[in-house]
Amino acid sequence: MKVALDAMGGDHAPKINIIGAIEALKNYPKLNHLYLVGDEAILRKEALEHGLNLNDPRVSIAHAADVIGMAEPGAKSVRRKRNSSICVAMDMVKDGTADAFVSAGNTGAAVAAATLKLRCLKGVDRAGIASPLPNEHGICNILDAGANPEAKPEHLVAYAIMGTAFARHVLGVKSPKVGLMSNGEEDEKGTTFTKETFKLLKATPGIDFVGNVEGHDLFETKLDIVLCDGFVGNIVLKSVEATAKAVSKWLKTEIKETPIRMAGALLAQGAFKALKAKSSYETYGGSPLLGVNGVVIIAHGSSTGLAVRNAIRVAVETVEHKINPRIEEAMATLPEPVTTAQ
Amino acid sequence: MKVALDAMGGDHAPKINIIGAIEALKNYPKLNHLYLVGDEAILRKEALEHGLNLNDPRVSIAHAADVIGMAEPGAKSVRRKRNSSICVAMDMVKDGTADAFVSAGNTGAAVAAATLKLRCLKGVDRAGIASPLPNEHGICNILDAGANPEAKPEHLVAYAIMGTAFARHVLGVKSPKVGLMSNGEEDEKGTTFTKETFKLLKATPGIDFVGNVEGHDLFETKLDIVLCDGFVGNIVLKSVEATAKAVSKWLKTEIKETPIRMAGALLAQGAFKALKAKSSYETYGGSPLLGVNGVVIIAHGSSTGLAVRNAIRVAVETVEHKINPRIEEAMATLPEPVTTAQ
Repeated sequence: MKVALDAMGGDHAPKINIIGAIEALKNYPKLNHLYLVGDEAILRKEALEHGLNLNDPRVSIAHAADVIGMAEPGAKSVRRKRNSSICVAMDMVKDGTADAFVSAGNTGAAVAAATLKLRCLKGVDRAGIASPLPNEHGICNILDAGANPEAKPEHLVAYAIMGTAFARHVLGVKSPKVGLMSNGEEDEKGTTFTKETFKLLKATPGIDFVGNVEGHDLFETKLDIVLCDGFVGNIVLKSVEATAKAVSKWLKTEIKETPIRMAGALLAQGAFKALKAKSSYETYGGSPLLGVNGVVIIAHGSSTGLAVRNAIRVAVETVEHKINPRIEEAMATLPEPVTTAQ
Repeated sequence: MKVALDAMGGDHAPKINIIGAIEALKNYPKLNHLYLVGDEAILRKEALEHGLNLNDPRVSIAHAADVIGMAEPGAKSVRRKRNSSICVAMDMVKDGTADAFVSAGNTGAAVAAATLKLRCLKGVDRAGIASPLPNEHGICNILDAGANPEAKPEHLVAYAIMGTAFARHVLGVKSPKVGLMSNGEEDEKGTTFTKETFKLLKATPGIDFVGNVEGHDLFETKLDIVLCDGFVGNIVLKSVEATAKAVSKWLKTEIKETPIRMAGALLAQGAFKALKAKSSYETYGGSPLLGVNGVVIIAHGSSTGLAVRNAIRVAVETVEHKINPRIEEAMATLPEPVTTAQ
């Protein structure tokens, strides 16, 4: 079990990746080797600073001279910067040196590199990112969270199948429930796109499609996968995150208004900490890019060390449960028109 | 200043409408008359129960025998139930009996009735709902929040102009800032639809277009209008609301875990209350349907009496500032291709 970590990726790289690496090596015995991919001189210095032991036989640096910045255009940068940490790490997955790729770097570039270098699985036209949200009954994954902004209905059908395979084999959900994000729960709600998708999903074997879902279902309804195009998924995820952050920030401001409120908040701090642990993306860590021929885990751009550690955990679990052959099997059972329609 | 209130609309109707009416009559002296539109027998009984004085010359019941349910298909119900409270109230605006319509009922039906009976303003193809969200710098309105799920780029240009007029003349913002909801802030981010819209907005005179915006901008950036199609707007609003609700619910659960946390929360309760007042839709109350030839205010389906009271306030303010002639003026200055493209 070997993981290639894009050590230069993320708003707070490389520090978070070094800390995440230390924690992952300590906590995941199934991780046989971790490659830190990035500028060797920088990484040696950071490893020394944060106490990562480079003499540990389970860790090594794979030099990559270049970095793709967080705001650079994804596909273009991948073609131009062949020696970037994202490209070098993805090449290691392609040639079998590593079993999985993990990055908190430029998502567009990671998706482009994965698609170009690893290619899609048999029967899959487009890869999709499954991003976890905390839900009262477990974890609800938004799929697609941004890999494919202008998806076609048949792409969402493939996402339903891939998401079901991921939830079943990696997350251990026996019968994963799949919803379609829409502007109302009634069957007839939606746009031309969602109505066509709804019809295809109803006819898709091997998935438990529960129909249209809305915002509150993300948190309150037993749901494992919520399907949408990457544009909507990206906006939903960012809006959810922004709302939680605003609520927390505004509550803090109100608490600071009086000493009594501050004393109260101190007494109740265990509740705030427990909520943060439950709801933070750091706990979930990584979003698999489903549909490519390899294991690719996308971590949040503003990842902390804890988030990187957990992204590595998701990578280890995803490799362990070998879902890609299962996705190909499931795609092969689909009736022709769904997989070949353009 | 006369307002027709759909007294049968809302999950908790008619009670919330009676309570909202009492509060509005008490607090808004500019409200000369309030028509409670709905089943007379039911409304008389509820008025008695909640202490609404029907001898007050400022209030009267306008009988409507029928009700459109919250889950009924909008346009169809409007054609079938001509004696529904929504249709009767809208007819009162159409014939000049009332200056504004307020409803916490079926949004689809209210939009359909407004479009069918009042028609769109000159130069406007599609009406849009402007829904307020609390923002650190004031109020940020999502436009469209669901009236027009499959909008075209030129509809969003009209929304930019209508939203600017509303923010300037009703909300008193000197130079309203307009953003375009996208999956990234860089100019080149987005779909075919948002990129085309971006280009048109850049060329539209009379608006302060700040470019693409994301989730966190809704709360942290000085922004008055965020444009999107009604499908995305509806999903964003519901996701924001659901997140705030989930955070609050899960925090309560954690607080109840120990007596010390509960004592702390009691001491800090002023902070929770202040946050609720700042962030609740009840404070904002109503979302104007912009672009129809009349004043139409849509209130939240799960409105309380306070929310209905504030929706009536928004109606009074919108009538007072006569924005429709200003919208028509602004639309008339647009170059032809933007208003007539199909």
